[in-house]
Amino acid sequence: MTENNMAFLDEIAWTQEGLIPAIAQDAETGKVLMMAWMNREALAETATSQYAVYWSRSRKAIWRKGESSGHRQKVIELRLDCDADVIVMRIEQEGGIACHTGRESCFYRTFQDGQWSVADPVLKDPKEIYS
Amino acid sequence: MTENNMAFLDEIAWTQEGLIPAIAQDAETGKVLMMAWMNREALAETATSQYAVYWSRSRKAIWRKGESSGHRQKVIELRLDCDADVIVMRIEQEGGIACHTGRESCFYRTFQDGQWSVADPVLKDPKEIYS
Repeated sequence: MTENNMAFLDEIAWTQEGLIPAIAQDAETGKVLMMAWMNREALAETATSQYAVYWSRSRKAIWRKGESSGHRQKVIELRLDCDADVIVMRIEQEGGIACHTGRESCFYRTFQDGQWSVADPVLKDPKEIYS
Repeated sequence: MTENNMAFLDEIAWTQEGLIPAIAQDAETGKVLMMAWMNREALAETATSQYAVYWSRSRKAIWRKGESSGHRQKVIELRLDCDADVIVMRIEQEGGIACHTGRESCFYRTFQDGQWSVADPVLKDPKEIYS
């Protein structure tokens, strides 16, 4: 995409830090897998590459999801909300694991009897994923 | 719930402003309907009332979703992510409309041919909803 085609980035209501939250949802099952943040560069690259690219707030760097784990997220559909300040991506999760804990989804804790309880299994040892 | 039972709130990694993003997802269809923010009070009330309560950042006030529109969100399941800084709620959307534009979902724009395009219909005129 050329700079001329980047007008869609100007429609985003970026935070003061220049970010927007991006929700990744499994395109097939509808399961919400994770939420992370994108900056302008990350969203531009996501749109052009069709693979999810985030901005890591902790590492302060572009985060090409799956670069070290192999668990890339192929983007099937990108959606923007009414306030233009949240994105939903329907994705295909390579390896079936989105979470750094080795689980399918980062949302593996449910609220049960007044507490957060782990409800979903680890599918692969993180030591194996990141070795 | 008594104060003793509010320990689950202390596990949240609140932002500097004391907030956490909360994603509302239709429990039946899996459609992501909206994302808004909760503070401690909003999450406590959501957990006890079983209806979604947010913190309105623009109005700086507790926002009992559906109070003016009637479009309340009955909470079926609450989930927390690995970093304890995002919540997903599986909900039943009363009236079938989550968005203030009168649409089912706030994510009614898709990225098509390099632009954000409106893809979902208005189900009810907002003037009727908020009259």
